[in-house]
Amino acid sequence: MFSPLIEDLIRALRCLPGVGPKSAQRMAMYLLEKDRDAADSLVRALEQAVEKVGRCSQCRTLTEQEVCALCNNRHRDQKLLCVVETPADILAIEQAGNYHGRYFVLHGHLSPIDGVGPANLGIDLLEQRLASEPLEELIIATNPTVEGEATAQFIAERARARGIAVSRIAHGVPIGGELEYIDGGTLAHAFNSRTAF
Amino acid sequence: MFSPLIEDLIRALRCLPGVGPKSAQRMAMYLLEKDRDAADSLVRALEQAVEKVGRCSQCRTLTEQEVCALCNNRHRDQKLLCVVETPADILAIEQAGNYHGRYFVLHGHLSPIDGVGPANLGIDLLEQRLASEPLEELIIATNPTVEGEATAQFIAERARARGIAVSRIAHGVPIGGELEYIDGGTLAHAFNSRTAF
Repeated sequence: MFSPLIEDLIRALRCLPGVGPKSAQRMAMYLLEKDRDAADSLVRALEQAVEKVGRCSQCRTLTEQEVCALCNNRHRDQKLLCVVETPADILAIEQAGNYHGRYFVLHGHLSPIDGVGPANLGIDLLEQRLASEPLEELIIATNPTVEGEATAQFIAERARARGIAVSRIAHGVPIGGELEYIDGGTLAHAFNSRTAF
Repeated sequence: MFSPLIEDLIRALRCLPGVGPKSAQRMAMYLLEKDRDAADSLVRALEQAVEKVGRCSQCRTLTEQEVCALCNNRHRDQKLLCVVETPADILAIEQAGNYHGRYFVLHGHLSPIDGVGPANLGIDLLEQRLASEPLEELIIATNPTVEGEATAQFIAERARARGIAVSRIAHGVPIGGELEYIDGGTLAHAFNSRTAF
């Protein structure tokens, strides 16, 4: 119905997560009808980011610098290292505001079926850090999925072999959550992992 | 929290309609982590569309051609012209599938408070078409808002002055809608515009 270039734009916008055909159409119409400057800014921001953003050489988070701001921050606790699956996880933890150590980003989890092994997760770089840094505790914050748990197990063994204490963030009923609405898996985990009161 | 280029990208994505801070962050992470090819395609599609897409010289819809496919289609009824506010309205009407005439896109509605007058809506071009084409009926399908009604009134007067029949699409209870859930304004309109049974 639309002309070919508009159809191309709608198709390209549909690649964005959470954008279906109607939203993509609305976005294309908005950019072309009302705000071509926004379209230009988006083009420039995308070009710059795709060209320059790579991974931090220490923690593997996304950054255009050689070493990211968090790794460069001398005020962060050098004795704590937290392993997460994605850069967005770092943001969530930083917003919670009570962790002051450093991070390591796996960019995924072990998943043999998808061909994702230790090499893809930068485990060699993590081992180098475990060997060379004055770490006292490794906190594993991978997601509580089957793959996330397997990844946590794998990393924990490597750290224990070097005599570093390993911990896993707690999983259970969210603060403010109502038991009535919590799924059975979470509730079973909360019972199994109960602590003395 | 993110590096400057990633923050720029998140800010640029937030200009899209319906995209808040969390969605923009998710989109940026997705493009940078998982699908840089999609980011490249989006850049190319945006560049091409912004550079080449303009307005059809006959109906003012968005197209990269001089005259759009609908205006060029000789099988469309030359005696019917439907006035709509946006190119997306054409899509909605075409999907309904029972109108076979041609269109005219205003790209908005009369709104003196925002400085939108007849010149911005291409009324001069519409008058040229009313004068030169073998039109028998002008169907006004502007939105049923205060501005849309005022615009409809304004255009209807111009067409009537040239002896062209003018109609307005019906507004009322949507087919399949339940009276219980219809707003009072729509219901009042449906009563005032009742037809003999």
